[in-house]
Amino acid sequence: MDMEEKLSFASDYTRTAHPKVMEALASTMGKDFPGYGDDPLCKRAADKIRLDSGCPDAEVKFLEGGTQTNALAIGMMLSPSEGVIAPSSGHIGVHEAGAIEALGHKVLSLPSHEGKLDADEVKSYLETFHADANREHMVLPAMVYVTQPTEYGTLYSKDELLALRGVCDSFGIPLYMDGARLCYALASEKDLTLKDYASACDAFYIGGTKCGAMMGEALVFPRIKIRRLTSMIKQSGGLLAKGWILGAQFDALFTDSLYLECGKRGVETAMALKEVMKRKGYRMLLDSPTNQQFFILDNATMEDLGKKVNFEFWEKCDESHTVVRFTTSWATDMDDIRRLEGVL
Amino acid sequence: MDMEEKLSFASDYTRTAHPKVMEALASTMGKDFPGYGDDPLCKRAADKIRLDSGCPDAEVKFLEGGTQTNALAIGMMLSPSEGVIAPSSGHIGVHEAGAIEALGHKVLSLPSHEGKLDADEVKSYLETFHADANREHMVLPAMVYVTQPTEYGTLYSKDELLALRGVCDSFGIPLYMDGARLCYALASEKDLTLKDYASACDAFYIGGTKCGAMMGEALVFPRIKIRRLTSMIKQSGGLLAKGWILGAQFDALFTDSLYLECGKRGVETAMALKEVMKRKGYRMLLDSPTNQQFFILDNATMEDLGKKVNFEFWEKCDESHTVVRFTTSWATDMDDIRRLEGVL
Amino acid sequence: MDMEEKLSFASDYTRTAHPKVMEALASTMGKDFPGYGDDPLCKRAADKIRLDSGCPDAEVKFLEGGTQTNALAIGMMLSPSEGVIAPSSGHIGVHEAGAIEALGHKVLSLPSHEGKLDADEVKSYLETFHADANREHMVLPAMVYVTQPTEYGTLYSKDELLALRGVCDSFGIPLYMDGARLCYALASEKDLTLKDYASACDAFYIGGTKCGAMMGEALVFPRIKIRRLTSMIKQSGGLLAKGWILGAQFDALFTDSLYLECGKRGVETAMALKEVMKRKGYRMLLDSPTNQQFFILDNATMEDLGKKVNFEFWEKCDESHTVVRFTTSWATDMDDIRRLEGVL
Amino acid sequence: MDMEEKLSFASDYTRTAHPKVMEALASTMGKDFPGYGDDPLCKRAADKIRLDSGCPDAEVKFLEGGTQTNALAIGMMLSPSEGVIAPSSGHIGVHEAGAIEALGHKVLSLPSHEGKLDADEVKSYLETFHADANREHMVLPAMVYVTQPTEYGTLYSKDELLALRGVCDSFGIPLYMDGARLCYALASEKDLTLKDYASACDAFYIGGTKCGAMMGEALVFPRIKIRRLTSMIKQSGGLLAKGWILGAQFDALFTDSLYLECGKRGVETAMALKEVMKRKGYRMLLDSPTNQQFFILDNATMEDLGKKVNFEFWEKCDESHTVVRFTTSWATDMDDIRRLEGVL
Repeated sequence: MDMEEKLSFASDYTRTAHPKVMEALASTMGKDFPGYGDDPLCKRAADKIRLDSGCPDAEVKFLEGGTQTNALAIGMMLSPSEGVIAPSSGHIGVHEAGAIEALGHKVLSLPSHEGKLDADEVKSYLETFHADANREHMVLPAMVYVTQPTEYGTLYSKDELLALRGVCDSFGIPLYMDGARLCYALASEKDLTLKDYASACDAFYIGGTKCGAMMGEALVFPRIKIRRLTSMIKQSGGLLAKGWILGAQFDALFTDSLYLECGKRGVETAMALKEVMKRKGYRMLLDSPTNQQFFILDNATMEDLGKKVNFEFWEKCDESHTVVRFTTSWATDMDDIRRLEGVL
Repeated sequence: MDMEEKLSFASDYTRTAHPKVMEALASTMGKDFPGYGDDPLCKRAADKIRLDSGCPDAEVKFLEGGTQTNALAIGMMLSPSEGVIAPSSGHIGVHEAGAIEALGHKVLSLPSHEGKLDADEVKSYLETFHADANREHMVLPAMVYVTQPTEYGTLYSKDELLALRGVCDSFGIPLYMDGARLCYALASEKDLTLKDYASACDAFYIGGTKCGAMMGEALVFPRIKIRRLTSMIKQSGGLLAKGWILGAQFDALFTDSLYLECGKRGVETAMALKEVMKRKGYRMLLDSPTNQQFFILDNATMEDLGKKVNFEFWEKCDESHTVVRFTTSWATDMDDIRRLEGVL
Repeated sequence: MDMEEKLSFASDYTRTAHPKVMEALASTMGKDFPGYGDDPLCKRAADKIRLDSGCPDAEVKFLEGGTQTNALAIGMMLSPSEGVIAPSSGHIGVHEAGAIEALGHKVLSLPSHEGKLDADEVKSYLETFHADANREHMVLPAMVYVTQPTEYGTLYSKDELLALRGVCDSFGIPLYMDGARLCYALASEKDLTLKDYASACDAFYIGGTKCGAMMGEALVFPRIKIRRLTSMIKQSGGLLAKGWILGAQFDALFTDSLYLECGKRGVETAMALKEVMKRKGYRMLLDSPTNQQFFILDNATMEDLGKKVNFEFWEKCDESHTVVRFTTSWATDMDDIRRLEGVL
Repeated sequence: MDMEEKLSFASDYTRTAHPKVMEALASTMGKDFPGYGDDPLCKRAADKIRLDSGCPDAEVKFLEGGTQTNALAIGMMLSPSEGVIAPSSGHIGVHEAGAIEALGHKVLSLPSHEGKLDADEVKSYLETFHADANREHMVLPAMVYVTQPTEYGTLYSKDELLALRGVCDSFGIPLYMDGARLCYALASEKDLTLKDYASACDAFYIGGTKCGAMMGEALVFPRIKIRRLTSMIKQSGGLLAKGWILGAQFDALFTDSLYLECGKRGVETAMALKEVMKRKGYRMLLDSPTNQQFFILDNATMEDLGKKVNFEFWEKCDESHTVVRFTTSWATDMDDIRRLEGVL
């Protein structure tokens, strides 16, 4: 295979899967499984997630990717003329090609604070809406969306998450968490466990694609029961015939703390990368505690460095500077960091 | 009928219809007409609009209301994963309960300058989008929406409109104009005629509901031909069985310049109202040349005045001040202004 | 106005409005009303409908046309991946340009017996569905749609309607009735009153457009409360700014039994028309007790008669025969029947 | 893994993947790939498909499953108020939970002849539609959908497919083929090659999930260019971040005729199964030349046999008989047939 050999910090989905996940997949060969997720591997994986989440009655569904999962979860919980509050940097409002709108719902954009919503601003927005005499002519803010870690690698603290939960409770609306990179939050954050997320959120997903799986996300409804859930997944095109290939992967990830281990590897190498970059004089955009690290490069440096290392253009800063993103993952090792240091 | 007798500047849709429109409706009694807009009255009204717009081949369709018309026109011109640029104050993004999103399209919000888009900002937004490496994961800005007059009563000048047209041409996207109150623009603005609008826009609507009609809007496609237009109107629930009741109204409005006359009445009384309010020391939010006038009242004055006159709450200004809207219309007369002056 | 003077039995929506309805509209001139249906006329009309329906808590909303009303009512009561059972001849499945599908729902077509569903067939369909091992991959039949009178002018008897109600109850799904021509059912049918319909149906609409109004339908939810009803109407483009023009019409129609009177006129003239046609040897397709009458004409007769009278092509019968429809209405009088007799 | 060891003819998606496909997946481990299908493996696989299809300019996209692929392809090619003609047994109309309707389009059901559409009936349906005076109020039949092999295992002959193509050409509408099990058609049918399908169809998909892949389908547009194709896939939730895991599989399947070999194995074992069943006196529902075989069992036999072999309930035949389906696949071997014979 003619892949280029350049050192890559482009993203956390450039590698196929953790070897243990691949082993789990290979071990299913030669056996017959029932279709559509109704198999022992999905059941076992879901049970492990229920146990780790402290929610014995949670509904757990394995889906193929993040956009699909967000759209399904949000679509299931909103009625026509209702919308979802998200920070302006939120994935659903920016990089999912309008998947929420395709379902008929508006993404209600609020200021992003390094990727995060501010609970007071959400509260104030909801109060203003409900005091507006024309509110029946407006899209009802009926759900709150957060990403953990955010698109900027930052994390909601336990207090921040509970503050949002409190606002949601005051207005009787659900809190949904997009956990595309959740393993890196779990590995980094001291005070928030899977049980805490399950307790604070009405729905969330545990990302697999960027966290060691070949593909797949686990959508969790800790308490809510959704009518006709399987039919809605089928209708959306998200019901995999061979559901066990998702079950096998999550079964592996939730065995012997592999999921957490994947997160730890990403965070440790990210912290080492940050150290190296700082030591070499690179300027951070913000201080991220997870596997995504953002730097402001002057354009000449960016071009030069880009010849030796893959990283991602993030946004223009000014005429002569650019924000770029370096991402580590479960597949990064300390040797990659040393090689990076060598070319800086 | 037990309607309250309070002086009303609440809106331009509080009265049934101009007497000449009502006459035209009454004159249809006792005759048989073919259904669904395929009648001589709709044909005659459309011909008059084609003539006044200088577009002999324009497609003209009569619809029931503004939200319906905006949604149909925008929906017809966008493909999946495409969105429409609008100012943050634009009606489609704020007060149509998510009708555009219900069709699957995102409203892409840009800054509102007293209700208007700035052509340079639109250009810059489009350039940034098309330079973004992730643009395939984003909603394509594929249309520009303006309101004339705007929700703040302001007007695009001919230069401003042509600048937007130029930006649309550079990017090959259509310009759509919401003319809910178009008669007041035509009556106020020296340099923009119906021909100018038809020449600058790919689609627009001539508002009837707020401009003398009992109900109805005339959607005009000056040059574009839309396939299956009638079927799409039918599907949306917008195809009136008795189309001639819309045709009769627009036929009346476009006879002997009644439409323009309606606009003039609204603008003249609005200018008189502005004079009176200024003379009495009320503070304008901005200087509107059309039938909507905005003032900043301290809350005590607002409450007191509200007992004598109907006007509309617009938005909170600060803790002790509020923005309110006074609206005149084709039905307002100078006596109403004098009565207002009497109670100020 | 240059309308042709040919005798017309083409449809029941070729005339503008009953004179008393027009009077009611005219009497609103010169007064100010609050917008969007929040006015005294809508309230009064809704109260009269609640009284006549025997449902003091019913939700009543005035909408503009039948397709809009059907789509809104059905859309509000179905969830994604749910569909509505209808006879194959039902308006929603045939002549509404896919309005139900546009909302994301399948119309589940069952055999039409002169326009009617058979309760046993509906029951058997539902039983088969729920016994199917693959039902999660199928559209859930979650509602039953009937038209009264049907598209063939026929009527469900009280027993037939209650049998359908029973089936719906067994499966816990709502029964919805499209009453586009309800006045003709009320005038014809001895054993079914508005109270009976309100008692048997979870939602239904009282047609105005074809029953004496200029336009408009009254959607009634006798018992169910729909969340965000006004917002959903607004979003669909169906919320008329000047709601009172619908309220005024239904207020007139439900004053002094005008609605029933309109129905009686249509039925009486239809019965006279049927007598005349039979006497002249025309062959009926079926025996309709309401204002739509269907005949099988040989093609030469059809062509000849078509030069003198307007009627509607219905469907090809065989190579040399065609089914045609003659429709009377609130506007037909006995003189029209005599004129018809003269040209037969 | 505690899978039951019962002999399984339940379906062709009970096994993970062909060993060569699994090898191809394993060989991607440890390398970095660009995301979203923009990788060398997807490019190579697409090139092979273009070559085998005889369409050097074809657009080829790899998707995750059949329902997703059908909905995307059909949605891309239809406009609002347009529908797709399908046989009443067609997968899109029966077992995809209303995915086409969820996109706003009606599935127009025509008679199924052992799973197939009849070209003359399609022609007659289209002619009747276009002669109908009310056609603007009806859903436009704007596409034809076929499955090859059909849901009953049957095949369109070359003549039958070309006849449908001819009808589509007469009416200017596209022909779309669902090839979920295409390898079994290719292996069975003498006179239709991949080049023939590419030549006859405007779009089709080459099924992977049931034909040797772990998952995935290859959607092919031989000639049509679709604007914003990637964005529409992204919006639908169908754009896999790690596109190469689909590319790797199709690359393997289209190397050394593995795809055809998978088909051959399924057909050979199906023919052997048919022989065995016939010899043992089982009654066939119809004569299928591909990997799905249907038998009519009396209920006692069905229950008894069900204890020893997995097969699928298809439909009730009468009170005492049931139609069941036996399916072979790329994973079935002659030993399975011998074991089946042993328990019959």
